[in-house]
Amino acid sequence: MEKTIGFVGLGNMGAPMVMSLLKAGYRVKVYNRTPEKAETVIAAGADRVEHLADVAVPGGIVITMVSNDQALEEVTIGEKGFGHKLEEGSIHLSMSTVSPETSRKLAAFHGKHNSHYVASPVFGRPDAAAAQKLFILSSGSSKAKERTKPVQEAMGQRVFDLGEDPGNANVIKLGGNFMIMAAMEAMAESFNLAEKNGIDRQVAAEVYASTLFNCTVYNGYGSMIANRRFEPAGFQLELGLKDCNLVLEEANAKQTPMPFASILHDTLLASVAKGRGKQDWSALTRIASENAGLK
Amino acid sequence: MEKTIGFVGLGNMGAPMVMSLLKAGYRVKVYNRTPEKAETVIAAGADRVEHLADVAVPGGIVITMVSNDQALEEVTIGEKGFGHKLEEGSIHLSMSTVSPETSRKLAAFHGKHNSHYVASPVFGRPDAAAAQKLFILSSGSSKAKERTKPVQEAMGQRVFDLGEDPGNANVIKLGGNFMIMAAMEAMAESFNLAEKNGIDRQVAAEVYASTLFNCTVYNGYGSMIANRRFEPAGFQLELGLKDCNLVLEEANAKQTPMPFASILHDTLLASVAKGRGKQDWSALTRIASENAGLK
Amino acid sequence: MEKTIGFVGLGNMGAPMVMSLLKAGYRVKVYNRTPEKAETVIAAGADRVEHLADVAVPGGIVITMVSNDQALEEVTIGEKGFGHKLEEGSIHLSMSTVSPETSRKLAAFHGKHNSHYVASPVFGRPDAAAAQKLFILSSGSSKAKERTKPVQEAMGQRVFDLGEDPGNANVIKLGGNFMIMAAMEAMAESFNLAEKNGIDRQVAAEVYASTLFNCTVYNGYGSMIANRRFEPAGFQLELGLKDCNLVLEEANAKQTPMPFASILHDTLLASVAKGRGKQDWSALTRIASENAGLK
Amino acid sequence: MEKTIGFVGLGNMGAPMVMSLLKAGYRVKVYNRTPEKAETVIAAGADRVEHLADVAVPGGIVITMVSNDQALEEVTIGEKGFGHKLEEGSIHLSMSTVSPETSRKLAAFHGKHNSHYVASPVFGRPDAAAAQKLFILSSGSSKAKERTKPVQEAMGQRVFDLGEDPGNANVIKLGGNFMIMAAMEAMAESFNLAEKNGIDRQVAAEVYASTLFNCTVYNGYGSMIANRRFEPAGFQLELGLKDCNLVLEEANAKQTPMPFASILHDTLLASVAKGRGKQDWSALTRIASENAGLK
Repeated sequence: MEKTIGFVGLGNMGAPMVMSLLKAGYRVKVYNRTPEKAETVIAAGADRVEHLADVAVPGGIVITMVSNDQALEEVTIGEKGFGHKLEEGSIHLSMSTVSPETSRKLAAFHGKHNSHYVASPVFGRPDAAAAQKLFILSSGSSKAKERTKPVQEAMGQRVFDLGEDPGNANVIKLGGNFMIMAAMEAMAESFNLAEKNGIDRQVAAEVYASTLFNCTVYNGYGSMIANRRFEPAGFQLELGLKDCNLVLEEANAKQTPMPFASILHDTLLASVAKGRGKQDWSALTRIASENAGLK
Repeated sequence: MEKTIGFVGLGNMGAPMVMSLLKAGYRVKVYNRTPEKAETVIAAGADRVEHLADVAVPGGIVITMVSNDQALEEVTIGEKGFGHKLEEGSIHLSMSTVSPETSRKLAAFHGKHNSHYVASPVFGRPDAAAAQKLFILSSGSSKAKERTKPVQEAMGQRVFDLGEDPGNANVIKLGGNFMIMAAMEAMAESFNLAEKNGIDRQVAAEVYASTLFNCTVYNGYGSMIANRRFEPAGFQLELGLKDCNLVLEEANAKQTPMPFASILHDTLLASVAKGRGKQDWSALTRIASENAGLK
Repeated sequence: MEKTIGFVGLGNMGAPMVMSLLKAGYRVKVYNRTPEKAETVIAAGADRVEHLADVAVPGGIVITMVSNDQALEEVTIGEKGFGHKLEEGSIHLSMSTVSPETSRKLAAFHGKHNSHYVASPVFGRPDAAAAQKLFILSSGSSKAKERTKPVQEAMGQRVFDLGEDPGNANVIKLGGNFMIMAAMEAMAESFNLAEKNGIDRQVAAEVYASTLFNCTVYNGYGSMIANRRFEPAGFQLELGLKDCNLVLEEANAKQTPMPFASILHDTLLASVAKGRGKQDWSALTRIASENAGLK
Repeated sequence: MEKTIGFVGLGNMGAPMVMSLLKAGYRVKVYNRTPEKAETVIAAGADRVEHLADVAVPGGIVITMVSNDQALEEVTIGEKGFGHKLEEGSIHLSMSTVSPETSRKLAAFHGKHNSHYVASPVFGRPDAAAAQKLFILSSGSSKAKERTKPVQEAMGQRVFDLGEDPGNANVIKLGGNFMIMAAMEAMAESFNLAEKNGIDRQVAAEVYASTLFNCTVYNGYGSMIANRRFEPAGFQLELGLKDCNLVLEEANAKQTPMPFASILHDTLLASVAKGRGKQDWSALTRIASENAGLK
């Protein structure tokens, strides 16, 4: 079993995940571009490394949780990236939301150094991370996944094995984000029709979320959409557009027409063009309201 | 409190609802166009009436649970309809899935006879009806709803008050059916992308239904769509198209553009044109699969 | 050959059409709800009738050119409608833009009186009507069409025979209006992309209209859309929505999914919800501009 | 004035364009990857060069007419590309259909060598090229365009100046291809509705193409779509998909939602997934027919 783990990226998600690892008894070597962000986890027992590449543990695991494809490439295969220092038998457990292509590219890079790549994006917000309640997706070589599993289990409530292709976990993660956006648009259209009939939007939201759609996505976003409360942003709309673009690129590459994703893309793009990129992604529903002459 | 209740329509839903009323201690006078369908409830203690109009109880409640707008109009205001015999203070508790317009029209008709109309469609399949677990929507005059509430509670687990306009409950019911169809299309697009990446569709379905979308609709339909098992039909696709048309008519009347509903309409219409009207409505997802070159 | 023709509806189109008939040597008995509108054609030699039904010529032809389905039904089969007075062998030459269903219904009505119905909507604006340059569609029984042909030729530059089903000419007319709206949306999307790249919209419009799309629709509407000049209305947007609804109803009845028509419907509906129903129908393109953050 | 011109790419379009230049009195140095394709123009007086880079004329113009972005980059800035040999004051007149981004990238490359780039895609098929009837778009620095204009005029009937940004001409070209595809889809939906009403598709096509839409695109493609004659391919559907992807990438970069382009993308993608990538791009209309239950 691993004793020491490297960890890059101490944002809203990364920090509580490190706390979970510490609680589970791991030593954790952490690096963050902005050193101040490391303070909480250092106080809780994590070890700070000065240089990014020092997160590499000989033959061990390095976890990354950064904001996008570009950041992931930079910390891994950039000039100062830790990837150059990963030795034989090491594993890069990559938990950011990135494209399948990026995962496949990094897996190939690590393969050349006889180290491994496991794609492992998560479902769950910072509070779920803090409570070890994340749902964790996992794809990569079986041997590598066997070793990462206890580490993943220390951070979440369940780990889903999605096969050997390193891109698979990313496909499922992106598909989930697409399905959330589709649910938001569907709710908005339905709530608008209710409102135009004189029905309170919040009553409509509550009916659906307590009957047919009694689950997190409809409960949480239903209330935001009914109240048109789009700030502060839990997840920024422009990141939603980025994910939707990743979905459509993958759909294009794999010859899979996705008409709902196309509509969502046009809606997100219009939202950004109207200056709403920094609002919560549920603000994509404002277009439907405006087109109904509401608000 | 009501002692005797009239009931028209003893199909898959109506029959178990009558059973619930009998269990709760009501006397129930039943009528069904096909008399054989009444046998089970008669055996359980319901009273059969020979003529449709005889379901009317002086000053009491008549429940209808029939298949569509046309059937509802016929049993209510048709030549032999019971509506002509409803006396002052009577209530028509209309539980079928029909258009808001039909509800408004029948409410006006009953109003002329000083009787009342409460629109009360339900969420739930026959097994939920048998277990008194239906979710029951309710709209109409407050006084009438006050009287129908204990009767509705005898059949379901919760009653939602949606205001005075008799069409409101129908709007919410149709909006719910639209949201189910939207969820089905979103799942299909996501599962197809997974399959095209070599991921097992059922694994994809399970990941989503046990994490972000842990609710009835995604659990039940997710499995059907992943397995492409569209028969036997729980709810026929051509009825889904009918409901989608009702949604779009209401959306048109109320100037509420619904782009997802428009896509679903085109998809359902194509499905019917291809001869799939009698399959389960989840078969609307076959178009997305075919367009991805699958199956 | 006919000598005397009845004519109902002296609006922007009807009046110049009567003038064409007078020039061709016909006597024309005219009726208009607002008598003042008849003055010009009376001055040119037309005969005014006091009562609508008096436009009927024994065994002869009555032309109608009114604003919509409802108006057509009223003047034909309403209480005072001329249809009750059409005798054996008479022909109703119906030139308004109405639904195929209305045509089929009126054809059946006339059939009961042994008179005939020829659906005959036109392509062309008032200036084309004034110059006898209309394109005239024609559907109905062959015998009736044979008799109406010289009359139609007196008003237009070409008559297209579309078969025996009286609804056919209306289907083609509605399909044409749909194609115009589709062309407008396509131009708008393309011009917006050009504008966002710093290209003058009018230059873009001119390039397309003088090369690939050198025809009336792209020339005329291209310039309006490039300049965003939507008033005065040549054809009101709310009438465009009406026609789009007729297209979609027919598409639904005939199981013909029309995804472009669905998008146009949502766009027109949003335009009306935003208060643009009285602008020219080319104002449907404002939604695309707004969604690109333009204007 | 130029006396000698270099020319790369002697396909269906390039060969007749070289013939036009020869007729106009230019000397033309030609290169083609497959030497046999050069034979006709050699016989007509063109000079063959052995090595690609030898098409460069000191201070002169090199025209490229190749199949896609990748081929253009290869012949220009690839290892053996002529771009490395363009001297001060030379002009690359780039007439292929490529993305605005490729044009901007190559313009920047040439700029470093003090040579110039003029983007100059064309509208017109091989027969138009043979008859000097091409419509020629042109964007780049004014000085360079001044010099290329007589050369362009030798190959076409009109040259459109689209400004200084080298990407502009490509934007207009792509927008035109998008508008052609939109017109094809609109025709298909309309013809299908006609066919479902029992109207001959070819009659419908003829009505539209001889009235409202009397222009090349509707005449030519209308007949192909009405007859469902999709082979041999004038322009392959998979190239249409490529262009549609370029449109959507540019639309995404410029925050310009294009709902019709999104629908066309999904339709083209489905067509390729169904194995129709080598058919004429008008075969995109088969999806609409199939969805209507038509052959």
